[in-house]
Amino acid sequence: MNTSNRISLGLDFGTESVRALLVDLAGRERGAAVARYRHGQILARLPTGGRALPPQFALQHPGDWLAAAGTAVRRARKAGGVAAAEVVGIGVDFTSCTMLPALADGTPLCLLPRFAKNPYAWPKLWKHHGAQAAADRINAVARERGEDWLARYGGVVGLEWFFPKILETLERAPEVYGATEVWVEGGDWLVWRLVGGEAAELPRSTCQAGYKAMWNRADGYPSRAFFGAVHADFADVVGTRMPGRLLAPGECAGELTPAAARTLGLAAGTPVSAAIIDAHAGVPGAGVAGTDTLVMVLGTSSCHMIQAAEERRIAGIAGVVHGGILPGLYGYETGQAAVGDAFEWLRRLAGERDFRRLNARAAALPAGAQGVAAMDWMNGCRTPLMDGDLGGAFTGLHLHHGPEHLFRALIEASGFGLRWIVELLREGGIPVERLVATGGLPHHAPLVVQIYADVLGSPIRVPGSRQGPALGAAVLGAVAAGRRATGFGTAAAAVRAMTAPAGRGCRVVRPHGANTRIYDGLYAGYRRLAGALAGRDLRR
Amino acid sequence: MNTSNRISLGLDFGTESVRALLVDLAGRERGAAVARYRHGQILARLPTGGRALPPQFALQHPGDWLAAAGTAVRRARKAGGVAAAEVVGIGVDFTSCTMLPALADGTPLCLLPRFAKNPYAWPKLWKHHGAQAAADRINAVARERGEDWLARYGGVVGLEWFFPKILETLERAPEVYGATEVWVEGGDWLVWRLVGGEAAELPRSTCQAGYKAMWNRADGYPSRAFFGAVHADFADVVGTRMPGRLLAPGECAGELTPAAARTLGLAAGTPVSAAIIDAHAGVPGAGVAGTDTLVMVLGTSSCHMIQAAEERRIAGIAGVVHGGILPGLYGYETGQAAVGDAFEWLRRLAGERDFRRLNARAAALPAGAQGVAAMDWMNGCRTPLMDGDLGGAFTGLHLHHGPEHLFRALIEASGFGLRWIVELLREGGIPVERLVATGGLPHHAPLVVQIYADVLGSPIRVPGSRQGPALGAAVLGAVAAGRRATGFGTAAAAVRAMTAPAGRGCRVVRPHGANTRIYDGLYAGYRRLAGALAGRDLRR
Repeated sequence: MNTSNRISLGLDFGTESVRALLVDLAGRERGAAVARYRHGQILARLPTGGRALPPQFALQHPGDWLAAAGTAVRRARKAGGVAAAEVVGIGVDFTSCTMLPALADGTPLCLLPRFAKNPYAWPKLWKHHGAQAAADRINAVARERGEDWLARYGGVVGLEWFFPKILETLERAPEVYGATEVWVEGGDWLVWRLVGGEAAELPRSTCQAGYKAMWNRADGYPSRAFFGAVHADFADVVGTRMPGRLLAPGECAGELTPAAARTLGLAAGTPVSAAIIDAHAGVPGAGVAGTDTLVMVLGTSSCHMIQAAEERRIAGIAGVVHGGILPGLYGYETGQAAVGDAFEWLRRLAGERDFRRLNARAAALPAGAQGVAAMDWMNGCRTPLMDGDLGGAFTGLHLHHGPEHLFRALIEASGFGLRWIVELLREGGIPVERLVATGGLPHHAPLVVQIYADVLGSPIRVPGSRQGPALGAAVLGAVAAGRRATGFGTAAAAVRAMTAPAGRGCRVVRPHGANTRIYDGLYAGYRRLAGALAGRDLRR
Repeated sequence: MNTSNRISLGLDFGTESVRALLVDLAGRERGAAVARYRHGQILARLPTGGRALPPQFALQHPGDWLAAAGTAVRRARKAGGVAAAEVVGIGVDFTSCTMLPALADGTPLCLLPRFAKNPYAWPKLWKHHGAQAAADRINAVARERGEDWLARYGGVVGLEWFFPKILETLERAPEVYGATEVWVEGGDWLVWRLVGGEAAELPRSTCQAGYKAMWNRADGYPSRAFFGAVHADFADVVGTRMPGRLLAPGECAGELTPAAARTLGLAAGTPVSAAIIDAHAGVPGAGVAGTDTLVMVLGTSSCHMIQAAEERRIAGIAGVVHGGILPGLYGYETGQAAVGDAFEWLRRLAGERDFRRLNARAAALPAGAQGVAAMDWMNGCRTPLMDGDLGGAFTGLHLHHGPEHLFRALIEASGFGLRWIVELLREGGIPVERLVATGGLPHHAPLVVQIYADVLGSPIRVPGSRQGPALGAAVLGAVAAGRRATGFGTAAAAVRAMTAPAGRGCRVVRPHGANTRIYDGLYAGYRRLAGALAGRDLRR
């Protein structure tokens, strides 16, 4: 089969922009483009005006997603000279849990005039932190009732997840909750817009449902009794406001409608895969199909995933989903809530235009940042404490320290947070033998990967492709297109074939032993600082 | 007696510059000027080149002091149209413990070619922090021997003091120690340069000796046996390398030599007072002559002083000296090691040119800085922990916080540090009934004084004169000139007469009760953070 004129499209929906990647079935990149969302992150005020949003709010405009995707796909096709007819499949990855309330015909509530100025009618971005109280309530009830599914999530439901975000709206804006006919993940909504159909046919991803909505193949969602115990009006949330069917990433959700084909500039009838979480798409995107390899998707936040043949329940590990990443294996998800975002925050704090000066000066400092220590919780702690209220910190500050000391200390703290996760996995019985870093950060922030390697005392492989999740999405698009169109008999075969060129361009970042010894000592201090900051004494 | 044609000169030697203030005997300001030191603070590298200085080093160039004073006095005289003959006395205040090694003829060792590139031959600025190990040794031996004087200093000799700085040089640069014929405070050296005379006549201030060199009127300096127990070569430090006579501030050290008169552009024969520490000069400068009033001299660091009729020994209070500020009362000295310096550090960290934007935004934030907390130990902790190794900190940081949050939190932390000092004094039996803020900060940083008033729940009086210590020095110059020249029978009479106009221009900053209630809760958190950061767990 000629693989060069059969191309899969990966659409990678991020926090600020969407990336379109066209890859042929031999993994050759044929075109790529990024288009920013017109409204970006909505953090300060709704585009429709009104009052300032609370600081923990982070919203998006649902109209931006398809509009930016159309722009990106056209640019990518033009860059690669790719004809619409050559595209055999489409894969979609999306930030998660980014979710929204909609009508049964898919209209987002925020686009209705009567809800346009109500923040709760808008899509909540993954990093929206308004649902802490709701998450606390859900966790308390789950613990009280001894819900079995809780152990699968390390014993804690995160405030960024699906049901806390719905409950927040039920409690703070019952009029929005009452008008919602479909609660849906952003990625699932997007795929639904591409393939059309009734709400009952809405293609929901098992990846999103498994990691963010406490769903699993054996038991489905938590019970009506559980939701009713959380809040009387919450009992029927699944039964009445979450229509759809569950599909694994790589399963075909449907074919591109004529209207969606016009929007994207592609051919109607092109198969579309069920969505996958952006981070999880990074696993196939990094060429990883099997066990024992931790894939670290490093971006504004970081998601670290590993697959294993067995299910282990480990306190603090955010999610274990069978087939959550690729079929047949248990996917384990862990994460750090602020990585690139925290570095960006520090850059702004230091009044720097870009990272050049900070990077050069931080790289010149010795391991340990001359006594400055940091806690990387500027967006709360995801793994293992699952607590969005925790805050970041710096200690050991003296008058001779500059922003580069804080920057280096923050990168080191991020590395220590990663080491904590690796230790948890190993202690829980999940071997971590190899490390792969993907996402945007490894390419524009080599210092971060070097410090991670030094802290972990292990080499880290960085695939050559800068398109990790987008490449993973394209692989899933090819899987959804089916064997007749692609010749791939299994998802693993598609991973192997389509990521081989990216694998050849990879580099390996090796640890400096002297720094590893220094970091061994400082890691103990990081854990003590974490204990102090998470303890009752130092919390406001 | 006509007071308007009799003028006293106050010379206020600070960290970056010297201020000359001409005031007549009725307290009317007749001219003032500031001249910067040519070499400023020497922090990175000696003017003679050589290797980078360690980060804890802070030196000065002794040639800068007289040169800048000459410039400042000429400008002040020109500004006020004051004739040299009108100046009846000169008072000198100086940062402390700023000290240097010299030959018996007063030549600083650093000006000898063979020592020009040796950092230990240069004057160590008060904030020089190279003597931690030396201070530890001195404290250990003093505790072991049960030295009685130790209790007078709150049980701890500070690393910024006179003998730790000498011991540091003995241990790190014995060739410098061996060549030193006179160890001397910067202020005493300066007065010695003004009035001339043999080393045996060197006029040493009881204020500097009492607060920084463990001297007291009854027992003198610590014993030869004590110094010998610290280090064999240290036994005779007082006996052989500290010639001079002890004089209280306001006592006449001598008359201006013809050479010094030429340098300053004044008349030879003008009486010069023994030196006083700059902060302590702020007490008479603020019009305070009696007990129960805490005078806070707020600058790069802060010194908080109060006088009492009785001696109390309070753990953590840095110094109690009889007649250390004004005759007949016990002077208590406490301090915060980084105040303006810490704010300046944050301004640089934030890449801001000046404080305008930071100030405006921090002032607009609610009390508590939206969850950000700070520890103001960027230059170590003076009162009460006396530990220069402790570092500053921030906690509770989130992505929505900007530099203004850190700035406000840092000011609040500074206020909490002050509250800790006030509580220590009160608990130790020293009434604190009134608060006066002087120094440079209250005039250019009103937000700081407001937050201090809110944290303390007490009004704070800010004298109108911006010349606090310089005015205090001028008062002491008039006292040294003697009754025949001035008509003042006592130091208190001089304080009253010469600070009356400044007192009339004062303002009172009153606390906002709502903020005081918020700060009451946050102060407990500050103390818990202080405990955690000073404890073994969070120290590197």
